[in-house]
Amino acid sequence: MIEGHGDDAYHYEDIRSDFSSNICAHGNHQALMNHLAGHPELLNHYPEPEAWTLERMIAEHHCIAPRQVIVTSGATEAIYLVARSFGCSRAVIPAPTFSEYANACEQAGLAVVTTSLQSREEQGRGSLLWLCNPNNPTGDVYDQLYIDRMMAEYNLVVLDQSYENYTDAHVMSPRWGVRTPYSVQIHSMTKTYGVPGLRLGYITAHETLTEQMRRFLHPWSVSALAVEAGKYLLQHDELICRPDLQEAQRLREGLQGIAGLNVGSTQTNFMLCQLSNHTASELKDYLALEHHILIRDASNFKGLTPAHFRVAAQTPAENDALMAAIREFLKDRQLKG
Amino acid sequence: MIEGHGDDAYHYEDIRSDFSSNICAHGNHQALMNHLAGHPELLNHYPEPEAWTLERMIAEHHCIAPRQVIVTSGATEAIYLVARSFGCSRAVIPAPTFSEYANACEQAGLAVVTTSLQSREEQGRGSLLWLCNPNNPTGDVYDQLYIDRMMAEYNLVVLDQSYENYTDAHVMSPRWGVRTPYSVQIHSMTKTYGVPGLRLGYITAHETLTEQMRRFLHPWSVSALAVEAGKYLLQHDELICRPDLQEAQRLREGLQGIAGLNVGSTQTNFMLCQLSNHTASELKDYLALEHHILIRDASNFKGLTPAHFRVAAQTPAENDALMAAIREFLKDRQLKG
Repeated sequence: MIEGHGDDAYHYEDIRSDFSSNICAHGNHQALMNHLAGHPELLNHYPEPEAWTLERMIAEHHCIAPRQVIVTSGATEAIYLVARSFGCSRAVIPAPTFSEYANACEQAGLAVVTTSLQSREEQGRGSLLWLCNPNNPTGDVYDQLYIDRMMAEYNLVVLDQSYENYTDAHVMSPRWGVRTPYSVQIHSMTKTYGVPGLRLGYITAHETLTEQMRRFLHPWSVSALAVEAGKYLLQHDELICRPDLQEAQRLREGLQGIAGLNVGSTQTNFMLCQLSNHTASELKDYLALEHHILIRDASNFKGLTPAHFRVAAQTPAENDALMAAIREFLKDRQLKG
Repeated sequence: MIEGHGDDAYHYEDIRSDFSSNICAHGNHQALMNHLAGHPELLNHYPEPEAWTLERMIAEHHCIAPRQVIVTSGATEAIYLVARSFGCSRAVIPAPTFSEYANACEQAGLAVVTTSLQSREEQGRGSLLWLCNPNNPTGDVYDQLYIDRMMAEYNLVVLDQSYENYTDAHVMSPRWGVRTPYSVQIHSMTKTYGVPGLRLGYITAHETLTEQMRRFLHPWSVSALAVEAGKYLLQHDELICRPDLQEAQRLREGLQGIAGLNVGSTQTNFMLCQLSNHTASELKDYLALEHHILIRDASNFKGLTPAHFRVAAQTPAENDALMAAIREFLKDRQLKG
């Protein structure tokens, strides 16, 4: 369950260009680390059992009430918490999407129904619907009318908005979300601020839902370092990641222009690609070993094939290098074949 | 569930002497924090989904195999992981002990049977027995013969050895523990190195058990900062906490000499006390407001009474101040009464 995610650079010797993780994580975090190092006493005390002081700051940031916020150790803890909190018997999960929803629901004993991205309406009652918005790995954004309709049809709609800052499309605000008890929103400070090494996320929802989830929370799951880092980040808006979406569209068009490759549309910085005649695993090894480039083999996403991979746009130079390397791979294979 | 633990200094304005947490956490962690600050790139990448590199180091440290180790976000995550991994129908938990065992088992759907510290033998088959060794809040240490007998009678014995470095009594080594599939040992780097703000623990067990638990592990639960800190701590044995057990015995004898107070025996640095005519909550407020001293109201431990509190020995001067303040409290109340 714990294998086969992106950002697995540790599997290779010398990765210089990492397209495998969706996260814009090129920021320099020296100032944040120096801030933490200025507070060594953070290590001497238990963190708050639940990160109340950070929850208050997040609530203020979104103009909602502190009781409508739960801080978690990354969005991952939030996903597992939601899965075990509501006593639903069934989870409906469109494919392809982030694999942890199914893992978390199966662990919590829910029956998991996988549907295509289009045809999940009929499964409503008694079920938890999981929507990743923007969706990983496709980069699609659900529109609000669709979400409203789902909230009317399902017991509860879980909106994983980890990538909410990675798109210009409309994504539901926490302030709107907490008004009704029909949706739970998951947010990722990891992704918003490009700090995947930190593990920090939060849930916003109507208080009847947060109250129910609090009963299933584990104490001290967020370290004192992560809490302090979260407070620091909230006060430094300039550290929010803003992926270059124009450059992402340029990369998409460039990749789409390569014969033997099909690329899905995207409203964010990452996109889903499919090789016509080769496997993603073959391409991944080639790029890592020959070009020090890492991509995400997406074949283990439910609903995808061995030919699918995902890339997140990087700098223009890196994107050019990726396109050139993929062209070389395909040409090389054509000559051999 | 998340309320009512020790180290709750954040509830009071100006605590100067903290007896409420069992942890020896007076160490200066500036060098560790500087080490982390020297690696700001830790924040730019996801940690390993499971902290394999740290697990290898811990395995080497204990002369066991890496597959026999699971690193967790504090001993708390280990407790919740064990509770949900083995499909047992019933948990047997002696009282008084750490409250998270019952919370974790109830969350995982197990029936929880609370027994006294003496009479739990008859509950064996189909059950998980939880032993905190040394036991929080009493400071007792179970002897190995007793543990061996329990391993023969129960499906599985969970040994929470968070305080294993806080006693001179014999506590089972990981190397011994991994030889049989009848026990799981939980260890706390938080406690061993006095870094409660960090959240870092690990499980050691026979590989058939760790394999089963790995199926229930959440990915990325341990941050890259905690993993790096763990590696640093393992290479700095001089940072291991060594509570002054002689001073703890002196405190115990001093407290035991106060009329109106009864103190249990202990084999570690903390001890359980019981007031004859007052509540622990009353004493706690008095000490916090009048003397800037924090103690642990232990009345919410199952099996204890409103008159129970716990203290962990501090410096001789602080211990003297605590004893004087308790004497003053009792004298004051006697005069009023």
